[in-house]
Amino acid sequence: MIPQIEKHRSIREFLNKDISSDIIEQILLAASRASTTGNMQLYSIIATTSQEVKESLSPCHFNQPMVKQAPLVLTFCADVRRFSMWCELRDAKPVYDNFAWFINSTIDTLLASQNAALEAEANGLGICYLGTTIYTASKICDVLNLPKGVIPITTIVVGYPKSTPELTSRLPLEAVVHYDTYKDYTPQLIEKLWEERESSEETKNLLEANNRSNLAQVFTEDRYKGGDNIAISKSYFDILKKQGFFNQEQ
Amino acid sequence: MIPQIEKHRSIREFLNKDISSDIIEQILLAASRASTTGNMQLYSIIATTSQEVKESLSPCHFNQPMVKQAPLVLTFCADVRRFSMWCELRDAKPVYDNFAWFINSTIDTLLASQNAALEAEANGLGICYLGTTIYTASKICDVLNLPKGVIPITTIVVGYPKSTPELTSRLPLEAVVHYDTYKDYTPQLIEKLWEERESSEETKNLLEANNRSNLAQVFTEDRYKGGDNIAISKSYFDILKKQGFFNQEQ
Repeated sequence: MIPQIEKHRSIREFLNKDISSDIIEQILLAASRASTTGNMQLYSIIATTSQEVKESLSPCHFNQPMVKQAPLVLTFCADVRRFSMWCELRDAKPVYDNFAWFINSTIDTLLASQNAALEAEANGLGICYLGTTIYTASKICDVLNLPKGVIPITTIVVGYPKSTPELTSRLPLEAVVHYDTYKDYTPQLIEKLWEERESSEETKNLLEANNRSNLAQVFTEDRYKGGDNIAISKSYFDILKKQGFFNQEQ
Repeated sequence: MIPQIEKHRSIREFLNKDISSDIIEQILLAASRASTTGNMQLYSIIATTSQEVKESLSPCHFNQPMVKQAPLVLTFCADVRRFSMWCELRDAKPVYDNFAWFINSTIDTLLASQNAALEAEANGLGICYLGTTIYTASKICDVLNLPKGVIPITTIVVGYPKSTPELTSRLPLEAVVHYDTYKDYTPQLIEKLWEERESSEETKNLLEANNRSNLAQVFTEDRYKGGDNIAISKSYFDILKKQGFFNQEQ
């Protein structure tokens, strides 16, 4: 397996060591080699190294220390603005202010981000994806001056790892793969697929730390609460409209 | 640069040669090593090798010959169903039927798809992403029996390349990268960023083939027409609701 794929783990603590501009450029070039819709490259990457901007981004990521500690923070944004401006300059009418192009540009953005993540790792760096990006997308738009036609999708922090955690477990492959067509899950299969994870030491520790009787409740009651999920849905959908990705009536 | 990233080009013609089940498994395992939201693995991969199912998928991808020709078609779907079923079995209330978790699961799905694409290439295979997946998502749900909580995001066709096309060009890196914060584009900068592409031989051939006076119009008038964009937006948003990713009022 490609070594960076095989050895990937999220790194959340970094050495106090800058990344050379050559390596940063290499990571960004790798991002730009990913497939994109019609080779339109409908994304922008905000590469933040300034401590001041990282300080402003930090609360957008719930003040997780890694944002200020990482020498490089890459915010990956779906971007139909650049392409639309070009169309307008060429007397071509851009119609990208809609949900289809939110999806297309989001796909472009995430294939680029994964290339960047792997290329960073190939250069001895560690990365962590920050799901908080969509929780606070509106604030991130303010901090990074994102205009209409641009919306943040994900963020990775990048730096030299302070340590190398164990690989995290995955569900057995049969949990996520369906041959030819989707075969729906039975309760029996669900039990079997989660058996190893639920009986692991890691889970035991988590249950103790969260004072819960099972792992699923750690997710629904502690990590991602129902009310928060709905609030985030509303706020992200609002910012989607505000940034111009949902302009027609649907 | 990671060789598969550096040498990636889309492959649209394949040899009539099957992929061994070992290699298919390796590709799927690579997909499963990607980062996911809270390690929840909110995706399913439909790995289609049956000629019959490929025939049924073919019209969903506008009958592009590569769908029937490729030995392996991987449809990557956002999937909150499996995780929700597990929660329900554990007396934990899943609240993933909303837009936030559409985005989270879409992110999971696309990081996995890019790992799969690169791992396929590392095994001597070629791939092509099919953007048609979102155009015809409703039909794809039917063909692949996708239940509520599951929605197709992208597809890659995989096979041994019949030939190796040239690498495609990219905009200069400065087109897609912003340091620290977003710097908006000026018309002068847009002109400069597209200069090389617009004056290329490839563009000249495209303009002739499409009988257009500039490249932007090939995109707006031939490839992705405004009316089509809006129709796809509506249909994908409808299927999003139907598959249960937009259940609350927003």
